[in-house]
Amino acid sequence: MNGCEINAGLPAVLFFFRMTYTSETLETIISHLTGLPSIGRKTAQRIALYLLKQPREKVIELADALRDLKEKITYCSECHNITEQPICSICADPKRNKKLLCVVQEPHDVFAIERTHEFDGVYHVLGGALSPLDGIGPDDLDFRSLLTHIQKNGIEEVILAMNPTVEGDATSMYIDRLLKPLGIAVTRIARGVPIGSDLEYTDEVTLARSLIGRTKM
Amino acid sequence: MNGCEINAGLPAVLFFFRMTYTSETLETIISHLTGLPSIGRKTAQRIALYLLKQPREKVIELADALRDLKEKITYCSECHNITEQPICSICADPKRNKKLLCVVQEPHDVFAIERTHEFDGVYHVLGGALSPLDGIGPDDLDFRSLLTHIQKNGIEEVILAMNPTVEGDATSMYIDRLLKPLGIAVTRIARGVPIGSDLEYTDEVTLARSLIGRTKM
Repeated sequence: MNGCEINAGLPAVLFFFRMTYTSETLETIISHLTGLPSIGRKTAQRIALYLLKQPREKVIELADALRDLKEKITYCSECHNITEQPICSICADPKRNKKLLCVVQEPHDVFAIERTHEFDGVYHVLGGALSPLDGIGPDDLDFRSLLTHIQKNGIEEVILAMNPTVEGDATSMYIDRLLKPLGIAVTRIARGVPIGSDLEYTDEVTLARSLIGRTKM
Repeated sequence: MNGCEINAGLPAVLFFFRMTYTSETLETIISHLTGLPSIGRKTAQRIALYLLKQPREKVIELADALRDLKEKITYCSECHNITEQPICSICADPKRNKKLLCVVQEPHDVFAIERTHEFDGVYHVLGGALSPLDGIGPDDLDFRSLLTHIQKNGIEEVILAMNPTVEGDATSMYIDRLLKPLGIAVTRIARGVPIGSDLEYTDEVTLARSLIGRTKM
């Protein structure tokens, strides 16, 4: 028990990374889980020990699903959304309005919009947004395939659904300028106070935008 | 866009579980990840899409590690800690004091104590605590193997390191009564104000215990 007084003053975090596991496999899985979105080392340990207590089949199913993730999933050749076919289920759906195109940054934006059940057109996933600070310029995003998608399908309206951030706005403006010569209607999703929120707690920028962008009752 | 006014009033959560993914594999992995400790459906989606962007080898390594978790890891026949050998590395270590035994509830408690570098004895993992409310009585925990472990190794002191909860306390008291006839010294880890904390923000029960359990300077 010697050394107790010295150690006691040091923050626990210093000791945290000198972990001692009695299994190398456990160490491996914890280091693999650490760093996944919203998973730190402590959560990684909890998940690994939780999985250890689960039935064998459940863990093997998860392992197989992870393999499939990299082996089966590709990107739709039309809209660059996630799919397991050459063309994704949205682009392949004959009930979808092929003249209405919604441009989004990432596949999860497609899922978010699909969840609203308010959009019956098709999508185009850019795979990112312009961000000069991160060194992402127009050459790093595939605007050429967006233009091909638009011209091939004879799109009549393009809805820009970028994130309401500086990068998203820059990308929207770039696409707007790109499409102007083609005579296509370009719209942007509305910005304003979110449904169910309290005006009192809405940030000033959003509230100011909602005033500027007011609509007729 | 019809139906907008009706939907707008409904909380978003109602729509959240009617997700539309364009890949079945993605759906599978998200449902497998959902429910792991501290992972909800939104985080599961983020993790799945993050993994999709990672290099193939990294994801395959994680999948392999998950398989190994169930196929390689067993429990030490001496102390019931996690191991890949018949005897865990702590029990097999000749430098460890085999006369000093620390009883803990779960394997993660072993890792927590190992991180302190203050204990050079061996462990015994009970695998739980007595909890009449959850229907866990003395017959559900393997106290017999604890007794075997103690008698086989000629343990001189047993340190009880259960969680400072009602269940942990009940388990400690049960073991204390169990070991009394054997004439073994039974101690319990100290309870009091945690190092680095503020007295002002310490809860009353902990502070009261720290007063009752005061030690000589």
